[in-house]
Amino acid sequence: MSGNTLGNLFAVTNFGESHGPAIGCVIDGCPPGMVLSEADIQPELDRRRPGTSKFVTQRNEPDQVEILSGVYEGRTTGTPICLLIRNTDQRSKDYSEIARTFRPGHADYTYWRKYGLRDPRGGGRSSARLTAPTVAAGAVARKWLREKFGTTFRGCMTHVGELAIGFESWDHVPDNPFFAPVADVSAIEDYMNALRKSGDSCGARVRVTAQRVPVGLGEPLYDRLDADIAHALMGLNAVKGVEIGDGFASAAHKGSMHGDSLRPSPPGGFASNHDGGVLGGISTGQDLEVAIAIKPTSSILVPRQSVNTAGEAVELVTKGRHDPCVGIRATPIAEALLALVVMEHALRHRAQCADVPVPAGF
Amino acid sequence: MSGNTLGNLFAVTNFGESHGPAIGCVIDGCPPGMVLSEADIQPELDRRRPGTSKFVTQRNEPDQVEILSGVYEGRTTGTPICLLIRNTDQRSKDYSEIARTFRPGHADYTYWRKYGLRDPRGGGRSSARLTAPTVAAGAVARKWLREKFGTTFRGCMTHVGELAIGFESWDHVPDNPFFAPVADVSAIEDYMNALRKSGDSCGARVRVTAQRVPVGLGEPLYDRLDADIAHALMGLNAVKGVEIGDGFASAAHKGSMHGDSLRPSPPGGFASNHDGGVLGGISTGQDLEVAIAIKPTSSILVPRQSVNTAGEAVELVTKGRHDPCVGIRATPIAEALLALVVMEHALRHRAQCADVPVPAGF
Amino acid sequence: MSGNTLGNLFAVTNFGESHGPAIGCVIDGCPPGMVLSEADIQPELDRRRPGTSKFVTQRNEPDQVEILSGVYEGRTTGTPICLLIRNTDQRSKDYSEIARTFRPGHADYTYWRKYGLRDPRGGGRSSARLTAPTVAAGAVARKWLREKFGTTFRGCMTHVGELAIGFESWDHVPDNPFFAPVADVSAIEDYMNALRKSGDSCGARVRVTAQRVPVGLGEPLYDRLDADIAHALMGLNAVKGVEIGDGFASAAHKGSMHGDSLRPSPPGGFASNHDGGVLGGISTGQDLEVAIAIKPTSSILVPRQSVNTAGEAVELVTKGRHDPCVGIRATPIAEALLALVVMEHALRHRAQCADVPVPAGF
Amino acid sequence: MSGNTLGNLFAVTNFGESHGPAIGCVIDGCPPGMVLSEADIQPELDRRRPGTSKFVTQRNEPDQVEILSGVYEGRTTGTPICLLIRNTDQRSKDYSEIARTFRPGHADYTYWRKYGLRDPRGGGRSSARLTAPTVAAGAVARKWLREKFGTTFRGCMTHVGELAIGFESWDHVPDNPFFAPVADVSAIEDYMNALRKSGDSCGARVRVTAQRVPVGLGEPLYDRLDADIAHALMGLNAVKGVEIGDGFASAAHKGSMHGDSLRPSPPGGFASNHDGGVLGGISTGQDLEVAIAIKPTSSILVPRQSVNTAGEAVELVTKGRHDPCVGIRATPIAEALLALVVMEHALRHRAQCADVPVPAGF
Repeated sequence: MSGNTLGNLFAVTNFGESHGPAIGCVIDGCPPGMVLSEADIQPELDRRRPGTSKFVTQRNEPDQVEILSGVYEGRTTGTPICLLIRNTDQRSKDYSEIARTFRPGHADYTYWRKYGLRDPRGGGRSSARLTAPTVAAGAVARKWLREKFGTTFRGCMTHVGELAIGFESWDHVPDNPFFAPVADVSAIEDYMNALRKSGDSCGARVRVTAQRVPVGLGEPLYDRLDADIAHALMGLNAVKGVEIGDGFASAAHKGSMHGDSLRPSPPGGFASNHDGGVLGGISTGQDLEVAIAIKPTSSILVPRQSVNTAGEAVELVTKGRHDPCVGIRATPIAEALLALVVMEHALRHRAQCADVPVPAGF
Repeated sequence: MSGNTLGNLFAVTNFGESHGPAIGCVIDGCPPGMVLSEADIQPELDRRRPGTSKFVTQRNEPDQVEILSGVYEGRTTGTPICLLIRNTDQRSKDYSEIARTFRPGHADYTYWRKYGLRDPRGGGRSSARLTAPTVAAGAVARKWLREKFGTTFRGCMTHVGELAIGFESWDHVPDNPFFAPVADVSAIEDYMNALRKSGDSCGARVRVTAQRVPVGLGEPLYDRLDADIAHALMGLNAVKGVEIGDGFASAAHKGSMHGDSLRPSPPGGFASNHDGGVLGGISTGQDLEVAIAIKPTSSILVPRQSVNTAGEAVELVTKGRHDPCVGIRATPIAEALLALVVMEHALRHRAQCADVPVPAGF
Repeated sequence: MSGNTLGNLFAVTNFGESHGPAIGCVIDGCPPGMVLSEADIQPELDRRRPGTSKFVTQRNEPDQVEILSGVYEGRTTGTPICLLIRNTDQRSKDYSEIARTFRPGHADYTYWRKYGLRDPRGGGRSSARLTAPTVAAGAVARKWLREKFGTTFRGCMTHVGELAIGFESWDHVPDNPFFAPVADVSAIEDYMNALRKSGDSCGARVRVTAQRVPVGLGEPLYDRLDADIAHALMGLNAVKGVEIGDGFASAAHKGSMHGDSLRPSPPGGFASNHDGGVLGGISTGQDLEVAIAIKPTSSILVPRQSVNTAGEAVELVTKGRHDPCVGIRATPIAEALLALVVMEHALRHRAQCADVPVPAGF
Repeated sequence: MSGNTLGNLFAVTNFGESHGPAIGCVIDGCPPGMVLSEADIQPELDRRRPGTSKFVTQRNEPDQVEILSGVYEGRTTGTPICLLIRNTDQRSKDYSEIARTFRPGHADYTYWRKYGLRDPRGGGRSSARLTAPTVAAGAVARKWLREKFGTTFRGCMTHVGELAIGFESWDHVPDNPFFAPVADVSAIEDYMNALRKSGDSCGARVRVTAQRVPVGLGEPLYDRLDADIAHALMGLNAVKGVEIGDGFASAAHKGSMHGDSLRPSPPGGFASNHDGGVLGGISTGQDLEVAIAIKPTSSILVPRQSVNTAGEAVELVTKGRHDPCVGIRATPIAEALLALVVMEHALRHRAQCADVPVPAGF
């Protein structure tokens, strides 16, 4: 149960620091017999990878994944899969100053107080770099869910800072560096260019969804599907809010409008999806609809007031290679996290309920 | 790990159905030696209890808690504490019709598909009644945290339906049946009266906070303090969104404004709390600030379209005793959930980091 | 994970003290749709129950089980099953002396040191009485495994003190109060009568087996099936040793004799079962064969030297109603524990490996 | 909870296969601030390492451990510690024949039935090689326990096949390749030489102990200290029996002889240790005394009957580099496992009971 494992049956244990020799994860519980190689994982890592546009950190990491175990002759064996990613672009520099001061909005102070010491190199364990193993594990889950149920996951950025992006089509998402579902991203580029010139950073909102999710995933209380989705996504660096379905807008709804009605077949299903694919903590078979809010990057060139480990006042400017909007690269990570939660519950569900028949007409 | 347990070191296992003989929970891992009796728990149950005003369900349950184990001569022994609450006001009626149909917005359909059968009496396991054991367990956690660290928890309703309540003072919260932090609740009463006449229901927003939380609670990745808060609160019936600190507003923030600066002593601490008391998944020692969105009650008198277990179209009107706004009674439950998460992490933290000294000046 | 839960997917959380108002357990994760009532559980409790012969404690407890949740219209709903057993024969007496002294071989001292206090009434939490909820939960697991796979569990006492009992037939086991697989138990009765007269107690060895266990249950490392069996059985009060298959005798074996050869069909299967139904931590489909050693009851009339809470020397005689050989009633408990482990692994196995086909000819 | 993790608070997740690119583990939950480098771990790996005498497998693996994460400037940071051991001496050979047949006593058949496929190279995941990461993790636990409480762990072989070794002194253990506590090992050498000539293998018994274990470690029920010790040690390859204290001999004991009496101070403590340092599942502060039985190596040159994946009869001779007695190298592994269990419970204990004072005079 120690804090760096996500999931119980499809358990992903994450390790590593931003500037250590390597980062990675161990996946325990993957079903056996699935065709798997690095080629199944690398494309997802490439989507998340730094250095791919001028709007994200210029750290140049190939994020090349290596499967160390759990695969034999191209198939998963059911034993733990260790995925390793070597760090290659850790610039050596003097971290003694950073180690002594607490950057506003960073985990510097809390790590120091919790552990009594911290690895200050590139944010250490609290670096967004540690989302790479999550994305790699998510790729394994996505493959299994796609092959087993046809489940797919996709996401897009819906807001960057104050700018609402709008939604035109999922088809546009791969065509721009913002994961924006619009054909023309010039407004986003202008916004981001102005932001970079100011030396400041901004937040973002990201939407992530799943299609063809089996009905019945989740537990009645506490470990509900929506609860575990919220856990996974709020556990992502810089996330400050999670919504399922209509989310905060639901608070202003009337019951007569909000409750999703079932329809007779054909076409069956539901007449609406205000609840985002979850009722009573259990999946309805509709699309899972999740939105997250990401705070602005804490590392900025604008000078900030803070204190050092002696409690003295200092002024800080965070140099280095940073994403001006960490939300930009959050989309593939959020998809991976959603996939990991669905995977976990798919296995839990069949552990308990494999004998429950699918009723006729549903 | 089965789904009805919250926490690992302070593990609360919840059981029961709305109209079964009893509901309750087992708390495993409570520190020994704490003075504890039913009198420490009952007041929190009374805050959550139905039938206390005309704006909540008229089911009349005393919710009398009985400690069955884990306490000897008035002190916790360190062994499991079983808390039992007998159901007393389960009206016998014919549930065969309800059992055959799926009410929109309810868990009827998902339970039926997951388990192949469900207890339809008063919502069975998916009833909001099952939050009572959570509140009872939360009372135990609150007592220990208060005695050990002086930690306190409080909450209030901030929005009921479209109506923003505003914030005047915590002092008003106990004085009205809405947990509203305002002196004059006539606007809320008018809103609720109109709602009841219409036979409809509405959503709500609730704020919950903790004061004097120790610094250092939480884990770096996945089981972050904010992630576990999101898990606990999204796991509460009808919740569709969770925010920490500035939440969704953070998405539109600039880094230069959002990042909370540390200040030299005196007075020390932080100059702001946009991050709601958590940085890098670990508590800062500032107040934990959490907001949740609650969807409208699904049980309404307004007729709705749905289907039955044969897949045929039906029209439904949900009679019975229901809260027109489940958000009203959510405040004490949300406080309890936040307390359970803080308790869990307080124990986890000292398991790993008990030897880390508190630095001078902090 | 707190210590009073056995299993993860079929998770049994045990609560209660010997002389508190009630003992019981919560089973979380039971598959839905199984016919279940108290009548399925009570017979197993009756086998374990005190007061059934002059060779066991004369405490008179009906051990009447009540299902508080998780069953609707006679079927399991998939939600937590709370089983409650009221304590009825707690004699009130003065426990202040017992509370101040540490009986040799008892948990008095360790509880006091761990928790700083303890419930001294009838052994409190460390009483063998707390095995009743385990037996009750085991009855639920046994029913499901029997209906699903035809799996059965049985056990017998093989040694009482220095006396080796021998094995004639399983058929004799229900016919005597010792769970002895022999027709004539007069030697055992003589041994026990002499023991009682001496005011002393003795140990025992018990064998427990499972038939028709599915192939493939268990995990490669750490949570092997044999490891979890050892955990469950060593976790039973007074057990000091656990063997799988040939157990300690294996140490003196040669590989040419020990390794169980597979045979072609017909008849298929294995030519021997030295490994007791487990290879590499995973079930072979052969009978599970387990043996346990149980130490003598610590509560005896023979005077013993010890100390009190002030560290002063005292002489102790343990009066009260005690089993002169706790091993006598261990057989149904050991069967229940084995069933709980097999149940857990049956669910875990299908979570991960439900898609693995059974090969032709096996 | 997936099966390849040992422990919850000091959680060791093991990965790798005998002939894959690497084996290793991730330790999550290590207390921060401890001085740690490869030099603290390597000596324990060297004790377990193959190729060190003619009586163990001639596979030549340096077992060089690399710390990939969780250590900064020579101190543990409290974040996951990944330990990596590259496999270097995996001989390439044709495994197609081995892949098609089931060796008696091996995990070949059970892995194939559980997962539908298996990695046949050198035993894959079921190889004793996978104990190396356990030993590495154990070295970290040992260091912390030694520095914190002065706890030490040691073990020795007590029987090799039919040969009882006797006990002269712990001092002799490091001086011979058998971990035998005797000065003259010629009888063991003779026994082993005869065994090797016969092409056969033999079992062994190993004793492992811990000194200066804190009082109070363990949980009342289920996750007792002795239960978790049994779990860890029965989870080691080839182990078929585990004893605590007097173990199976306890079954023939009388209570008047077995129960360990406490003594007044000075000298305090207990007059005997029949219970092996555990009472009621909780440590007494006496030495933990554990014994294990290890079955003979299944890989032998003596021809054996078996079947292949088509169910046809085959005769097998297992060539390759194998330990004729796997028990010889079991001693350092058993010590590591015992250390991991004590470590886990040391952290669990202080999570719950950190505020319990040590009474005067104890």
